[in-house]
Amino acid sequence: MTAPTGDGFDQKARDAVYRAMFTRRDVRSHFTSEAIDDEVLARLLLAAHHAPSVGFMQPWNFIVIRDVARREKVRDLFLAAREQELPEMEAERQALYRKLKLEGISESALNICITCDRERSKGSPLGRWHNPEMDLYSTVCAVQNFWLAARAEGVGVGWVSIIEAHALKALLSIPGHVTPVAYLCVGRVSQFAPRPDLETHGWGQRLPLPELIMSETYRGQGEAPLKSTVARLKSVEAEPHGQRVAPAVPQREPPKEASALSFNSLNLEDASASR
Amino acid sequence: MTAPTGDGFDQKARDAVYRAMFTRRDVRSHFTSEAIDDEVLARLLLAAHHAPSVGFMQPWNFIVIRDVARREKVRDLFLAAREQELPEMEAERQALYRKLKLEGISESALNICITCDRERSKGSPLGRWHNPEMDLYSTVCAVQNFWLAARAEGVGVGWVSIIEAHALKALLSIPGHVTPVAYLCVGRVSQFAPRPDLETHGWGQRLPLPELIMSETYRGQGEAPLKSTVARLKSVEAEPHGQRVAPAVPQREPPKEASALSFNSLNLEDASASR
Repeated sequence: MTAPTGDGFDQKARDAVYRAMFTRRDVRSHFTSEAIDDEVLARLLLAAHHAPSVGFMQPWNFIVIRDVARREKVRDLFLAAREQELPEMEAERQALYRKLKLEGISESALNICITCDRERSKGSPLGRWHNPEMDLYSTVCAVQNFWLAARAEGVGVGWVSIIEAHALKALLSIPGHVTPVAYLCVGRVSQFAPRPDLETHGWGQRLPLPELIMSETYRGQGEAPLKSTVARLKSVEAEPHGQRVAPAVPQREPPKEASALSFNSLNLEDASASR
Repeated sequence: MTAPTGDGFDQKARDAVYRAMFTRRDVRSHFTSEAIDDEVLARLLLAAHHAPSVGFMQPWNFIVIRDVARREKVRDLFLAAREQELPEMEAERQALYRKLKLEGISESALNICITCDRERSKGSPLGRWHNPEMDLYSTVCAVQNFWLAARAEGVGVGWVSIIEAHALKALLSIPGHVTPVAYLCVGRVSQFAPRPDLETHGWGQRLPLPELIMSETYRGQGEAPLKSTVARLKSVEAEPHGQRVAPAVPQREPPKEASALSFNSLNLEDASASR
């Protein structure tokens, strides 16, 4: 017996899940000073806590950082790290790099450091003996759950990765066996940008998805029907705003030939995402 | 100006996002033989491709593996790895470990290996100079997007981490600079289990979320109001089935005192999740 398509997710519910993904942004520039209710923050943390984890290990902790002085110290770490990273960029991109806003540490409502306790499954490391990094990956899944739930709550999240981990660990008293996986700026926003900042500022552009699909082996040719289906979905992304059709009717599967159109309701034109 | 709560996500849409997270499962046992439409698979890949990526690097590729003989070889790798991992478990857990079903490689509709090209941002590694593992983390975000979108489409996903990476790379002709991050079993399912398999079989239980929250620094006390709010949400999780209330009315914020109740519509009683 096969569960019904979506197992309780009608078209509208599926669209909501996709919309959270397509309109999620790595927020740096649009934080407001508005506080975040504990009610909302609790739901985001519960979402993170329901991430998959290898061997049901749940290796994560959540350090909530509100203190302004501490956050300024974290921002100093970022500024120092940015200066160190800058020379690593291709010469012709350094001016652009300097212009990019890459964090919202102080102006967001709060920061959260999501950590991974590498020893939490000591004794029975199910699924980690060959791939010990799986606990870090589980923690990243928690970050992504947090990020998507935040998008659905109208809360912006930005991941600051330009930071020296040992300095951050010292500042937050994080012990040796614990890895800070993500340092997040979290807050209400004035807007979610229609496109990723790095795309808007010309740092990069979205890669064509069909070219990222391989068949059976690395660089394996094949999957032509899948690739052309993907290409059709992508073409919706590039359509001008005015050509969007109305959202698909809930509970009805769109006809196969027009399936790409159902994505129009997700505002995909504005939905290319970077971090 | 602050964007409206949820920025277009009404209560029902938010619930859909949370429901995908709370009812997602690491599927091993309930795959059916039904094929997956290219239409559906294309949407899942598009969701993965809209994951955040450090420096807009998009380091992922997607190897679609359908060939039965190749999948049997992957399964052989799993079986060998399981025998190697078994002695690493605590003695009293080895019998249980043997009983656990930990993969659905051959019986799922198809497999997908999601890889990370470590060199895709060579030249301008924005956000990776201090933390070069950020590209792997970006790829994990793509995995989690794929997984959640699959849940909303009624498609089960299981992540096989008990496998030797070099052997897998050889089998799939993956070059040295590319890391296979996730090997996924993907297929229609007869059901999504009400609880994680590892919880059902007594391998582990969900940790109390309030104890995972820290304030300002690692092990920092504080955040009492947040923790008690979280504890209230958790208590909903433990409520017997019959006490669930009807879904909240869309577009209305629940009153603060009862906010935990809005989670009842998400079937949280069945929603503890492992992988």
